[in-house]
Amino acid sequence: MGRKMLHVMLPVEEVDVSAVKYKPQHLQAPHLTGYGFLLFTWLMEAPVLGSLIARFLKKQNGLTKILRNTVIPERPMFKPEYPPQESEPGVVFLGDDRHPVERVQTALECLPSYDSSREWDHDTSSPFLYWKIRDYAHAYRKDFTTPSIVAEHIISVVEKSNAPFLVSFSADEVRRQASASTQRFGDANFSMEHPGKPISILDGIFMAIKDDIDCCPHPTKGATTWFHNIHTVTEDAICVSRLRSCGVIFIGKANMHELGLGTTGNNPNYGTVRNPHSIERYTGGSSSGPAALVASGLISAAVGTDGGGSVRIPSSLCGIVGLKTTYSRTDITGALCDCGTVEVVSPLASTVEDAMLIYAAMAGTSESDRIVFNPSPLCIPKLSTDDNSNILQAIRLGKYTEWFHDVSNSEISNKCEDVVNNLAASFGCEILEIILPELEETVYILEIILPEMEEMRTAHLVSIGSESLCGLNAHCEAGKGSLLTLDTRTSLALFRSFSASDYVAAQRLRRRSMHYFLEAFKKVDIIVTPTTGITSPVIAPSSLKLGESDYEVQAYLMQFVIAGNLLGLPAISVPIGHDKGGLPIGLQLIGRPWNEATILRVAAAVEV
Amino acid sequence: MGRKMLHVMLPVEEVDVSAVKYKPQHLQAPHLTGYGFLLFTWLMEAPVLGSLIARFLKKQNGLTKILRNTVIPERPMFKPEYPPQESEPGVVFLGDDRHPVERVQTALECLPSYDSSREWDHDTSSPFLYWKIRDYAHAYRKDFTTPSIVAEHIISVVEKSNAPFLVSFSADEVRRQASASTQRFGDANFSMEHPGKPISILDGIFMAIKDDIDCCPHPTKGATTWFHNIHTVTEDAICVSRLRSCGVIFIGKANMHELGLGTTGNNPNYGTVRNPHSIERYTGGSSSGPAALVASGLISAAVGTDGGGSVRIPSSLCGIVGLKTTYSRTDITGALCDCGTVEVVSPLASTVEDAMLIYAAMAGTSESDRIVFNPSPLCIPKLSTDDNSNILQAIRLGKYTEWFHDVSNSEISNKCEDVVNNLAASFGCEILEIILPELEETVYILEIILPEMEEMRTAHLVSIGSESLCGLNAHCEAGKGSLLTLDTRTSLALFRSFSASDYVAAQRLRRRSMHYFLEAFKKVDIIVTPTTGITSPVIAPSSLKLGESDYEVQAYLMQFVIAGNLLGLPAISVPIGHDKGGLPIGLQLIGRPWNEATILRVAAAVEV
Repeated sequence: MGRKMLHVMLPVEEVDVSAVKYKPQHLQAPHLTGYGFLLFTWLMEAPVLGSLIARFLKKQNGLTKILRNTVIPERPMFKPEYPPQESEPGVVFLGDDRHPVERVQTALECLPSYDSSREWDHDTSSPFLYWKIRDYAHAYRKDFTTPSIVAEHIISVVEKSNAPFLVSFSADEVRRQASASTQRFGDANFSMEHPGKPISILDGIFMAIKDDIDCCPHPTKGATTWFHNIHTVTEDAICVSRLRSCGVIFIGKANMHELGLGTTGNNPNYGTVRNPHSIERYTGGSSSGPAALVASGLISAAVGTDGGGSVRIPSSLCGIVGLKTTYSRTDITGALCDCGTVEVVSPLASTVEDAMLIYAAMAGTSESDRIVFNPSPLCIPKLSTDDNSNILQAIRLGKYTEWFHDVSNSEISNKCEDVVNNLAASFGCEILEIILPELEETVYILEIILPEMEEMRTAHLVSIGSESLCGLNAHCEAGKGSLLTLDTRTSLALFRSFSASDYVAAQRLRRRSMHYFLEAFKKVDIIVTPTTGITSPVIAPSSLKLGESDYEVQAYLMQFVIAGNLLGLPAISVPIGHDKGGLPIGLQLIGRPWNEATILRVAAAVEV
Repeated sequence: MGRKMLHVMLPVEEVDVSAVKYKPQHLQAPHLTGYGFLLFTWLMEAPVLGSLIARFLKKQNGLTKILRNTVIPERPMFKPEYPPQESEPGVVFLGDDRHPVERVQTALECLPSYDSSREWDHDTSSPFLYWKIRDYAHAYRKDFTTPSIVAEHIISVVEKSNAPFLVSFSADEVRRQASASTQRFGDANFSMEHPGKPISILDGIFMAIKDDIDCCPHPTKGATTWFHNIHTVTEDAICVSRLRSCGVIFIGKANMHELGLGTTGNNPNYGTVRNPHSIERYTGGSSSGPAALVASGLISAAVGTDGGGSVRIPSSLCGIVGLKTTYSRTDITGALCDCGTVEVVSPLASTVEDAMLIYAAMAGTSESDRIVFNPSPLCIPKLSTDDNSNILQAIRLGKYTEWFHDVSNSEISNKCEDVVNNLAASFGCEILEIILPELEETVYILEIILPEMEEMRTAHLVSIGSESLCGLNAHCEAGKGSLLTLDTRTSLALFRSFSASDYVAAQRLRRRSMHYFLEAFKKVDIIVTPTTGITSPVIAPSSLKLGESDYEVQAYLMQFVIAGNLLGLPAISVPIGHDKGGLPIGLQLIGRPWNEATILRVAAAVEV
């Protein structure tokens, strides 16, 4: 054992926040596609050489230093731990134990009144026609159309298109659900005198489910070629069954980055989903299919999983709304990642209003998690009252300017800045500068400065990587490993190189980061950032067959979102326009623990 | 990656408990002392060879199979999670926020009345004279003696003895505390008319603190040769300050197994503490010094840490009482292991009554842990009322006969059985047979039976090992590793071989084991076992200089205690007599979460 430099972190309470300086991130890893990627994967998987490469990469990127050569004074925090939170102003409680149908009805009553004269408007500035959930509901109730008619349109698009939106699809199954819904609205002799009995505002609303969430009768593959062989789906995931109980129609299982272990959506198994705004570009991932389906206007909403930005990143890149809830806010039972400490199941929709309705139906902490996490009661913002503007006025937005501007293209931060300034101008929100120290230079006692160190990224990577590997390990050892994509295989090879004490060290960093965020939330109600540091990246043609590994792009995609995952905080991505190339830009609002209502309220104001 | 057998565990709720068969444990590892041990340590630390040896050992003992080749359906449980518990009958609440002095007073009032006529009795069946805390208190208040006089006796014994009880000792410091206490009882002109003002019943009571808990002005070394150089003690650990505020006198820092990473108490740095009942034998560990000091009658009580039986094992082997509290029941801040998920700080005393008084003073969950663990209110059994026998009568004791009898010497289980039967005969306690499946054959779907598998031992070893390593890693990398004992170095080499996903797998096993214990606790109030599967082992002379590694002995020492640690359950070891060789035997009572009061009540009944 050679002697290495010892680094000792100051206890987090003693760090002088004003003394730290922001250093932009930089990562060192090769950009790989095609046969070069194949070769690299083989090397990473080779018994001794692989360990050496992993060790080199970890050392180059500061992981070894932070995980093994540093004394981190904080206790590990394996899952988010929050002090009890004050209740949010102007909210309506949904009732954690009430039936989803009742909760959706309550949520509906919180929305501004519905203007049916606007329903068929087509915003000509957008190439896509987005019907809101209330538009469909109105059309069904007025008999302008029926779920069965809409179903046929969707089936026709899916069957004619060669876009790999869906990994599992059955026209018959869609027709069956649509027919049942149509019957609920009324039979062939439907009339205003004999209205049907839809279950809820969500009856007849079409949704897709990401392929890592169980939804009968579809298999769950996680967009691999084999996972369904070792995982039998016998019932809907909890979130799916809650939505189904409201009358939602599921069109199938949406494509994704294999096993959720990537942020572009590249998938050589089923084809890479293209961004509806620019078909030579990525949707972002891992919820690529859900985002593309919603962004194209084909369905109203989708459910994805978000463990490292997997809902917010594609929402941002595809110009839709993605809501990541507080950790454990929704029962994750029935999702492939239901054993992790960073993942949640979350809705994607074209508008904040729709995301809110879906959230009201699917949210609700599991019984066992309620004991451990003691969540604030489930609630949503009352947007329908005059009070809304008063409440908005009192909201303090925290912005960390240097982080905000650390993006690949200044159009992103400028556009985000405009929206934030507009919130201040239109609603009177206060904008406050905050500093989140461990996004930058780390303060050590013995040696000052380790510029490229990114504690949160390290802690997040080790956490999600180890937890994913744990669920896959036995299958990989039994021979399934070689059936995965190169991208997944190199990720797993890296994850295998993390030691158990690295994992514990990562949890110490988690507590440390939590301190900074909870301190910031003493001053502000919401932290605003761009959702991603880059707009939709181009798909390298050479990546289609064997995949792609580009850590620099991945870093830009993830830099603003992982705090929400590592610390379990609620966050929403709202579309705020396009760059000069017409690519969507998203703004992220990160809320206090359990404060979904506040971020939904501000997101709705951004949308206006 | 070769293809390996895939094992799939049944979800824990589906395991048919009645169908499993008990298989005694067997472990494979060399018994090493002296230069053989030195060689083995070098090999374990060698870059490539070390990994291969660790891999071989893990494979031989089933760790690889259970951690990497098995699908464990349960979610990880990183720290104990308990459903809310019913309150225990016949208890008095101590008030989690009350001052320790008030809590000790409340505890005092719960004890049977004190019989001062018995105070100087010497039980001739024991070679040791144990004064209870109330005996000292009575003697001080009657001016039969003073803390200063007792202090001189203790100082004299410590200075004359060459037994390595203490790692840090200062006669002046003991005299200073004793003098302050003596003054509180009254000056030289003390008389019954002018009684002094002792702080509490604990005023002038002598205690020792294990060397991994901060206690001013002593350094904290964890019985290493260097830890104090990197760890500055600026204030007492929380438990120490609570006891000090009651007037306790601390004689110094007690010896231990280096860094707590062993169960014999062997320590080449400061000398191995001998068992007062047989000086060629071990005290057990890691709290070797605390146990020997209490067992020899020199002090009333001590505080140790228990992460894998470190309080209960030496208590059992030395014939005293050791109480391991529920995880987080006492604020562990200021102990070296304060970042772990299995360790607690806990009292050792010569009687249950004394353990109860010390517990009342030092217990109390930290503010941050209260949010996460939601502990039942702190309470103790009211032993002074007639109700006590009625409450005892209603207690159901669970005994898993096959586990109970899996000991190295049937005298242990027979003696334990006698005591349990006596509880039934004398107090009417009900004895029920229980089965704890994962202590034995594991139930798999694809392949039946893996006899040597011990999920709990594996999960515990990976947890405590990785968490210990995490705190030491940076120092070891900086060159301190080679200054540790061979025993610690081989342990750390093994811990280094655990991967991050092994750690997560261990936490899945933790949830699985918890299920079985919580199921058992639906039927019974207490689970009884021998404390250890072996009485005090002989110290190999060849082990004194370089240490010793004997996994078989370690397995016998730990087999009954680790459930308490892995699952955070409260447990107490009570002395119940001696084997034919005169070596003490201990009975362990494991309680429901937060049910310290119930195990203390039954322990007091055992003592009678």
